[in-house]
Amino acid sequence: MNKYIIDPIDLTVDEIDDLVLLANDIKKDRTRYQDICNHKIMATLFFEPSTRTRLSFESAMLSLGGQVLGFSEAASSSSTKGETVRDTIQVVSGYCDIIAMRHPLEGAPMVASEKCEVPLINAGDGGHNHPTQTLTDLLTIQNEKGRLNHMTIGFCGDLKFGRTVHSLLKAMSRYENVKFIFISPKELRIPEYLKEDLLEPMNIQYKEVETLEEVIGELDVLYMTRVQKERFFNEEDYIRLKDTYILDLKKLQVAKKDLSILHPLPRVNEIQTEVDEDPRACYFKQTKNGRFIRMALILSLLGLDHEVERL
Amino acid sequence: MNKYIIDPIDLTVDEIDDLVLLANDIKKDRTRYQDICNHKIMATLFFEPSTRTRLSFESAMLSLGGQVLGFSEAASSSSTKGETVRDTIQVVSGYCDIIAMRHPLEGAPMVASEKCEVPLINAGDGGHNHPTQTLTDLLTIQNEKGRLNHMTIGFCGDLKFGRTVHSLLKAMSRYENVKFIFISPKELRIPEYLKEDLLEPMNIQYKEVETLEEVIGELDVLYMTRVQKERFFNEEDYIRLKDTYILDLKKLQVAKKDLSILHPLPRVNEIQTEVDEDPRACYFKQTKNGRFIRMALILSLLGLDHEVERL
Amino acid sequence: MNKYIIDPIDLTVDEIDDLVLLANDIKKDRTRYQDICNHKIMATLFFEPSTRTRLSFESAMLSLGGQVLGFSEAASSSSTKGETVRDTIQVVSGYCDIIAMRHPLEGAPMVASEKCEVPLINAGDGGHNHPTQTLTDLLTIQNEKGRLNHMTIGFCGDLKFGRTVHSLLKAMSRYENVKFIFISPKELRIPEYLKEDLLEPMNIQYKEVETLEEVIGELDVLYMTRVQKERFFNEEDYIRLKDTYILDLKKLQVAKKDLSILHPLPRVNEIQTEVDEDPRACYFKQTKNGRFIRMALILSLLGLDHEVERL
Repeated sequence: MNKYIIDPIDLTVDEIDDLVLLANDIKKDRTRYQDICNHKIMATLFFEPSTRTRLSFESAMLSLGGQVLGFSEAASSSSTKGETVRDTIQVVSGYCDIIAMRHPLEGAPMVASEKCEVPLINAGDGGHNHPTQTLTDLLTIQNEKGRLNHMTIGFCGDLKFGRTVHSLLKAMSRYENVKFIFISPKELRIPEYLKEDLLEPMNIQYKEVETLEEVIGELDVLYMTRVQKERFFNEEDYIRLKDTYILDLKKLQVAKKDLSILHPLPRVNEIQTEVDEDPRACYFKQTKNGRFIRMALILSLLGLDHEVERL
Repeated sequence: MNKYIIDPIDLTVDEIDDLVLLANDIKKDRTRYQDICNHKIMATLFFEPSTRTRLSFESAMLSLGGQVLGFSEAASSSSTKGETVRDTIQVVSGYCDIIAMRHPLEGAPMVASEKCEVPLINAGDGGHNHPTQTLTDLLTIQNEKGRLNHMTIGFCGDLKFGRTVHSLLKAMSRYENVKFIFISPKELRIPEYLKEDLLEPMNIQYKEVETLEEVIGELDVLYMTRVQKERFFNEEDYIRLKDTYILDLKKLQVAKKDLSILHPLPRVNEIQTEVDEDPRACYFKQTKNGRFIRMALILSLLGLDHEVERL
Repeated sequence: MNKYIIDPIDLTVDEIDDLVLLANDIKKDRTRYQDICNHKIMATLFFEPSTRTRLSFESAMLSLGGQVLGFSEAASSSSTKGETVRDTIQVVSGYCDIIAMRHPLEGAPMVASEKCEVPLINAGDGGHNHPTQTLTDLLTIQNEKGRLNHMTIGFCGDLKFGRTVHSLLKAMSRYENVKFIFISPKELRIPEYLKEDLLEPMNIQYKEVETLEEVIGELDVLYMTRVQKERFFNEEDYIRLKDTYILDLKKLQVAKKDLSILHPLPRVNEIQTEVDEDPRACYFKQTKNGRFIRMALILSLLGLDHEVERL
């Protein structure tokens, strides 16, 4: 496995399979893993705030018996004194055994990894990559559907800027017979380059539609994201379309009984709270999975994934 | 015991007695308890800063062998992205075993507890409740006086907005033969509803006065709070009264020899530093008690309070 | 040893020798020390941000098996409510076993120590002292040169305001036959009082020059610091001199083969990154040493430095 996990596709399909297996083993038998990272330190370096992701990483490390230090926003970091991110990471890598970093600039984790003496996980770089979110999504799909191939996935909402959508799309493209349906306003369509460079060369089936209602019945997985008003070109379109990207029990009436609804969270109102109790709602399970897949990734990067048998 | 401790009177008098006993046992024999929360994680979610309270909770959890994660101000939380506090708490409750939360809005912890999968402690919600402060006060009174009944308690300062005063008043009203003396400027008197709905129906003796000097000799416990200049209606009253709410050695000359002086801290100048060395000053002991009563509460909420006998 | 380490010269030469020995022993055999601070808590109280220093302290404590709590900026502390630093420290000293504090005001740690019930380390007070940086520098010089006496040390850059320079100068003055060369623009010369009160009474050799080029060949140790443009009196001087305080491979051509280049970090551009690969560059080793000397200091202050033999 790469020492630096910058992009979800830094991991092969086999490595992802192993991580999913390991995460589920941890989930089943947490006490076996609760001391495996004793005396190891993770640094969580968040150059921009992201509570959910940070707490998930910290919970993962602590649940393995490890320790955590770090910062939760740039104001508390040396970058305000003009230090390069490369220097910051080189210094901190002398204080810890593994780093999870979040940065507002795309590519920052790549630069940071140049002088990093310990494994490094990108916890999100601008609109670019967020590999542990993608791993969380994959674990959730695997657990809900029992497979990662042969299915139809709908992505709904802001598909132009949605980082998690792009990453999951790239990751799922590597599995057999996965079809994609992109549900978004015209202004927020999936970028052309993903269709031209990824889907079309691999002959992957997809279609693009403007409303959730017209396709919801075809989906095995529905991946919801938020549509921000500011992203629409004109008020008219916004008023015409806004309700189609809000999931409620009414729209779910025509969905499959075994549909799995995912959302990277936080949500605002794009999934009505009435949906939370529906057995098809998986987004709170998904956020819990985030801890377990991060535990698996930390163990693997520290080379401790085979330690557990010895215990 | 309730799984969610929102209001001090969520606890019965018996439960408070048990917590006080447990806190004192921990205080006496800390090593017996130092590993009891191994592998447990507390989240401290402070939607507004409160260092003292946060550090006291964190120290409590670490002193039990547990671990801590969280945030210390809203800027580092997902609430800035429009997430509801209910969603935030539901997500974080998947990452930890117990939550202590502070929020500027009254009632937030109640809403938060609806979907919370782990025990939750209100660490202060606006001007509303702050149950662990009240427990700290009760433990201190019990330890200093040897009892929680049969005494006269003076509350001095801002009794209108003082959250800790209201909570302690409610808690102490449940003990036999406790008399209250309220010492405050007219503008900052104890709210009418506390007198009408709490004290009078229960036939509890109380009186209201404007100066500390006239009653200090009657008190067994003096609970000091700060009076902010901005809270006075006019400059004249402020100048006339400000010194009466400042405790110094001179005022203490006529006080009982076994008076116990409490203050929730931080103080500004309402207790002169010259008082710190007086044996009647208990506020630094009180702040230390805060750690022990929180340890007792955490143990009880996690169901580990009977574990220690097994060790 | 003093219970409070405020100034580097609170430590005797012998105590420093012991700390250096202990730090190197820890460095060699980390597993022997990894549980020695179990059940101990350090508070890192940073009234102004300093990520590098804070993370180094936290890494030190965690690497000894201890735990950490604290805050990383004043906004999260009770000082915003008007509490004195003395009260804050007295309260927090009831929650922990040792304190590391950083404060923007000179002398704050001295005031803080008055009521502090546990050992306290000054982690930097304004332009005043920063003893653990000095200890880090001493450990690095000892390890690189094999000695702390008989050498020529050049200090380059802003010698007027550079706190680390003043502290290291005071510490190194206590060793035999150490010569100093001060390399700075006229405006940023070493303060007169250090020459008059420290160097001259002790007959310590020193000289002052304006360019690095003219003396780099004489140096055993080069201690670089940053020169900020705003500190020059006029634009002309700045343009004439700015490049002389930037270290690059060209200037290093005439330096000794065993020169040791130190820098307290963070750097901006005063050491070109091309120098990083030169074997004479020690600043990243230096920052790593920071963790080990802090581990040694924590152990000594907690009285656990002799514990390890028992293990």
